[in-house]
Amino acid sequence: MIDHRTLRVALLGAGSVGSQVANLLIERADELEERTGARLELSGIAVRDVDAPRDVELPRELLTTDASQLILGSDIVIELMGGIEPARTLILEALNSGADVVTGNKALLATHGAEIFDAADQVGASVSYEAAVAGAIPIIRPLKDSLAGDRVKRIFGIVNGSTNYILDRMDRDGLSADEAMSIAAELGYLEADPTLDVEGYDAAQKAAILASLAFHTTVSIDDVHREGITSVTGEMVESARRAGLVIKLLAVCERLGEGDDESISVRVYPALISREHPLASVRGGNNAVFVEAEAAGDLMFYGAGAGGIQTASAVMGDVVSAARRHIAGGVGVGESPRGDLPVAPIGAIVTRYQIRLEVSDEPGALEAIARAFSAGGVSLATVEQTTIETDDGAPTAQIVIGTHRAHEEDLSDIVAALAASEVVERVASVLRVEGE
Amino acid sequence: MIDHRTLRVALLGAGSVGSQVANLLIERADELEERTGARLELSGIAVRDVDAPRDVELPRELLTTDASQLILGSDIVIELMGGIEPARTLILEALNSGADVVTGNKALLATHGAEIFDAADQVGASVSYEAAVAGAIPIIRPLKDSLAGDRVKRIFGIVNGSTNYILDRMDRDGLSADEAMSIAAELGYLEADPTLDVEGYDAAQKAAILASLAFHTTVSIDDVHREGITSVTGEMVESARRAGLVIKLLAVCERLGEGDDESISVRVYPALISREHPLASVRGGNNAVFVEAEAAGDLMFYGAGAGGIQTASAVMGDVVSAARRHIAGGVGVGESPRGDLPVAPIGAIVTRYQIRLEVSDEPGALEAIARAFSAGGVSLATVEQTTIETDDGAPTAQIVIGTHRAHEEDLSDIVAALAASEVVERVASVLRVEGE
Repeated sequence: MIDHRTLRVALLGAGSVGSQVANLLIERADELEERTGARLELSGIAVRDVDAPRDVELPRELLTTDASQLILGSDIVIELMGGIEPARTLILEALNSGADVVTGNKALLATHGAEIFDAADQVGASVSYEAAVAGAIPIIRPLKDSLAGDRVKRIFGIVNGSTNYILDRMDRDGLSADEAMSIAAELGYLEADPTLDVEGYDAAQKAAILASLAFHTTVSIDDVHREGITSVTGEMVESARRAGLVIKLLAVCERLGEGDDESISVRVYPALISREHPLASVRGGNNAVFVEAEAAGDLMFYGAGAGGIQTASAVMGDVVSAARRHIAGGVGVGESPRGDLPVAPIGAIVTRYQIRLEVSDEPGALEAIARAFSAGGVSLATVEQTTIETDDGAPTAQIVIGTHRAHEEDLSDIVAALAASEVVERVASVLRVEGE
Repeated sequence: MIDHRTLRVALLGAGSVGSQVANLLIERADELEERTGARLELSGIAVRDVDAPRDVELPRELLTTDASQLILGSDIVIELMGGIEPARTLILEALNSGADVVTGNKALLATHGAEIFDAADQVGASVSYEAAVAGAIPIIRPLKDSLAGDRVKRIFGIVNGSTNYILDRMDRDGLSADEAMSIAAELGYLEADPTLDVEGYDAAQKAAILASLAFHTTVSIDDVHREGITSVTGEMVESARRAGLVIKLLAVCERLGEGDDESISVRVYPALISREHPLASVRGGNNAVFVEAEAAGDLMFYGAGAGGIQTASAVMGDVVSAARRHIAGGVGVGESPRGDLPVAPIGAIVTRYQIRLEVSDEPGALEAIARAFSAGGVSLATVEQTTIETDDGAPTAQIVIGTHRAHEEDLSDIVAALAASEVVERVASVLRVEGE
């Protein structure tokens, strides 16, 4: 190759991913030059505190606390600080100065994505974010490019490794939710604020990003129906296992309706899936995403969902692409124009449900419950009545109902009616069944 | 959007994939315009016989037998004729006229890839070929872009649906090889010339393409060690099953050695893998590819490996990318410069082996066999002796040996010595064990 240019690369943030990215940029400079036709020069690393301890030793002279100054004159800016501010302002500064941006900031994209993509479009720069969803797994690029000539019908997957680890330990080792959670915390699987994981915020951010891309629609985290795993008990996991099912925290993005009635549903909740389903065997902190497309059929992408070095691989792929784009000299190809489909409320979805009820053991209880379902227009697929011991040791009747496919709004009306009914002592759990 | 350009798209070939691509270009013209910012105008479809029956009804006025004429003035040329000529000449014509090329032609790329990529580099055009490997599964783009900043250590996977169908039916339903093959032929799973599938040529072409891309090295089909499934018997499949293993036709591409001693091995053969391995559960005609990268760790890509409409999805993704590139106005970003690692002979690989021997049932037989292994420097992990009935009904002793990891050249010397030895009546099978 002749005439190799030098591209100035600014790195914002040197946490577990950022420090690995810095390391790869330095150690693999020659290989990257071969891959891109450009010398990628790491011009500096913006950090909050130049003296803070890091996972990887970084050249002291590259560290700076002045991110804005570092951005000036950069060709590529890699933002790995996380959080909304100052990340948002710095990314906008970078785009306005003509740099391409690579980011792994899911919280930012799930809240201010539209603003950032618009800014990039206006100046002809690119924003890449493979690292924002499912760590090392290439899922953004396949959706953006490989499936660009196809039509995505549905995406569902396991996109949060911490909660998958917790549910997996509960399932495999019979741990209680509390036990599994303390082990996950000890192993560093949970964020400093565990609610981001266990309440489903992290998965909801990723669902918003995937849905935006797949359906060419602006979806923010506020559009995502979100339920975490805090309501999942060892008893629910055990009962699922006996039925050949497993509980996973799923992110689901799907098209509803057709033509002018088309809308999309984006949701995160713990759901039952068959043990035969490939997602059931996703262990520990791994991630897996299923994509159902009109022409391509079913595709699955599987790999490490987190980890500094793994996520750094995704960042580096984006950096190489940005560098090639610079060398090729083309202007940025913005995000596709938005179809802006309406986002449907959770009541609009159609799926199967499993409802566990504790009932007073009296004649007519089952009949009353069956009547509630038929009056609500939801038909029953399976009914199983057993006697269990409640927490206070008293025997009580448990009825586990599996429905046929039904509208969520019909189902929730029925559940509300059951909760208020005299024969039902407790609605122990309501779970959706996915992956069928 | 303003100022939408029209891009002229020429299609060469209207077989099962080509006719679906034509159909998608026509039916989804508006959606494609939204995605790319360009009107994609299908300017013609070159076929051998305009009157031949097709899977999909195509507008008669678009059909032509003059491919060269059609190529002139095209912005994007999609080659789905298959075979070496005239596909090779037409692709070179298209590139020289400045068009971007999208192809699904694995036979051509595995033999004349270097020539075609060089031609593209010289004129600054692009050649995309997602459809050439693993049908609808995005694997080319993740290797080329997403993992471009990482280092691929090993790729292994199931890339031929026909042979996977045959092996799967033998395993699940206890069919003989002949029975499974006739069913596969009846269902249209096999090519007109079944040796392309069952002798491993199709998988070897795909392995050559994957290895070229992953290791930045020119690998042609002649560099690929190839063994088909014709030697796999029902007895071997059954014996694997009893041991908790399954036989799959694997394509394996891996780096051997380090630094100046680095080389690559590219091979296709039936191998044993554990039933616990995710590849073991790849059913019927599906494909799955594992990628082990230095930073990203293990990734898996899974989906339909063939089928007209599924493969058309991969073609359309490439067409959209080519169109965006045209609109962005950049020159083509060629294939990465080649590292050109040497391709190692099959003798250089290191793996575990399972050897089944039929031996004369006399004292000292096992000792002689064990001595052959230790003299050859290969240590044994498991030995199992049973009495079986041979084809002529006579009882004979069967010894199944599992080795520790060993060099293939050491192992083949030992197998040659055993075959010549007096105590061994027959070397019934030698299989490699992968995926550990």
